[in-house]
Amino acid sequence: MNEIKIFCPATIANLNCGFDVLGLCLEGIGDEMVIRQTTEKGIRITKITGADLPLETAKNVAGVAALALVNTINPDCGFEIEIHKKIKAGSGIGSSSASAAGAVFGINELLGRPFTKPQLVDFAMKGEALASGCEHADNVAPCVLGGFTLVRGYNPLDVIKIQSPSELFAVVLHPQIELKTSDSRAVLPSAVPLKDAITQWGNLGGFIAGLYTSDYSLISRSLRDVVIEPHRHKLIPGFENVKNAALDAGALGSGISGAGPSIFALCKGQDKAEKVAYAMSSSFLDTGIAFDFHISKVNDEGVKTI
Amino acid sequence: MNEIKIFCPATIANLNCGFDVLGLCLEGIGDEMVIRQTTEKGIRITKITGADLPLETAKNVAGVAALALVNTINPDCGFEIEIHKKIKAGSGIGSSSASAAGAVFGINELLGRPFTKPQLVDFAMKGEALASGCEHADNVAPCVLGGFTLVRGYNPLDVIKIQSPSELFAVVLHPQIELKTSDSRAVLPSAVPLKDAITQWGNLGGFIAGLYTSDYSLISRSLRDVVIEPHRHKLIPGFENVKNAALDAGALGSGISGAGPSIFALCKGQDKAEKVAYAMSSSFLDTGIAFDFHISKVNDEGVKTI
Repeated sequence: MNEIKIFCPATIANLNCGFDVLGLCLEGIGDEMVIRQTTEKGIRITKITGADLPLETAKNVAGVAALALVNTINPDCGFEIEIHKKIKAGSGIGSSSASAAGAVFGINELLGRPFTKPQLVDFAMKGEALASGCEHADNVAPCVLGGFTLVRGYNPLDVIKIQSPSELFAVVLHPQIELKTSDSRAVLPSAVPLKDAITQWGNLGGFIAGLYTSDYSLISRSLRDVVIEPHRHKLIPGFENVKNAALDAGALGSGISGAGPSIFALCKGQDKAEKVAYAMSSSFLDTGIAFDFHISKVNDEGVKTI
Repeated sequence: MNEIKIFCPATIANLNCGFDVLGLCLEGIGDEMVIRQTTEKGIRITKITGADLPLETAKNVAGVAALALVNTINPDCGFEIEIHKKIKAGSGIGSSSASAAGAVFGINELLGRPFTKPQLVDFAMKGEALASGCEHADNVAPCVLGGFTLVRGYNPLDVIKIQSPSELFAVVLHPQIELKTSDSRAVLPSAVPLKDAITQWGNLGGFIAGLYTSDYSLISRSLRDVVIEPHRHKLIPGFENVKNAALDAGALGSGISGAGPSIFALCKGQDKAEKVAYAMSSSFLDTGIAFDFHISKVNDEGVKTI
């Protein structure tokens, strides 16, 4: 095998109670990449469709992630990368992470899997840093590992896959506005009242316990954000109405996907997810802003060969 | 049955990464109480041994907790309570919580269990508030429910029992100094740097995931406290040496038990726990302060009839 075609799924980071630590992998929404082994050494981005992104390796997240991997083992070959973007940049569902994860996954497959999935997260994070300005694993971890993931800590990177119940579906409503991650970060406070931090870690603990025990009610009670959402929601037109519409329609919880502007909801079962997606979309129509939406089962596999 | 004798176990709250939300129930260390049903209505504390505590019902945590329960259903009888304290007040292993939990557990048993265990936590919290000044469930929850517990939130109280692996042992070293909870609270900051809060909820999530999956390494990596311990440890003589001695001897983690002054360690297996207890005790000798210590398996049952 000297060529591989891969699917690089979109992801939701933060999930209300897990700012910068929790993530979730989606199904049916993602980029495609083709990676080709070459006799010439080095990494070349040969084609990008669906987005206006740099072909220069050192300026492309997939290129930087790929370099992080190959520079570690210096293989006797090189790689060409084609990127077919389906996830819009800046949508808040891990567009750059998908490219970074896809590159390192594909190269690892072509090399006969010298690296474990957690090691791939580490390499992908180097690419992701090019887009976000710092090394974050909250989108690359679920993209590589699938399912729900927790970034326990950095130094060294410690990423855990969390077991989750089978009937969880995610809805993502993506308002077609540009919201820069830097602007989303700028509204955040540098400190959190201790009582709010306690509330947040109670909810995070409840959410993880709910995932392990398939307790949908506990998952629902825990899907709250008293730390980030109160500052960030103002940047997203119609956010409160869409969230309330999701909850009224029976979503387990709803919040900002990653740094926004996408709004997510988690639901039990596909029927409920479709009802919630309809309610969220109907509510968002009032803003007059174009949008698209996705309904997705939790993708337990993550990035994969197709 | 119109008389019941009960064992009210000691507990460890906070457990490094779960300030105000996590707790753990101990075995072999606890108070005993005798509760007697009487034809005369009301709650009377008839005897207290092992501590100098008020017999007046409204000034005794067991009395206040008992009143919270009986005032809800107004039974056609009353109760006498004898308290035999073995857990020293102000030791940081849930002395007042044990009395509060024991009272409501015993009365509930005598009344034929009209209330669920989570409801008993709510009543016990009312008694605990008399001692600590505010309603906290992080000690009463593990005392009533057993095992590891998470207080997901208040309003309404939401307490979850967390599954835990079978080989976990706790060591508690209790320096015989007085450390008032109010003093322990006074050193805490009112706000936490966002980056530290993120570190803390990453660790809390990892700890809970480690409990569900019996991953002792993950439990160990997660048993860290970047929020409270840096402020509180100065109140406890010898803390850093004892903690380091515990870790050097192979403890999974070590920290301040509740509001202190007790220092706890978690260990895998009884042999390791004994080794760790010896190392902690040897280290603490340097302070010249009297102390006692306990080695305990996790008590999965909680308060019980004996």
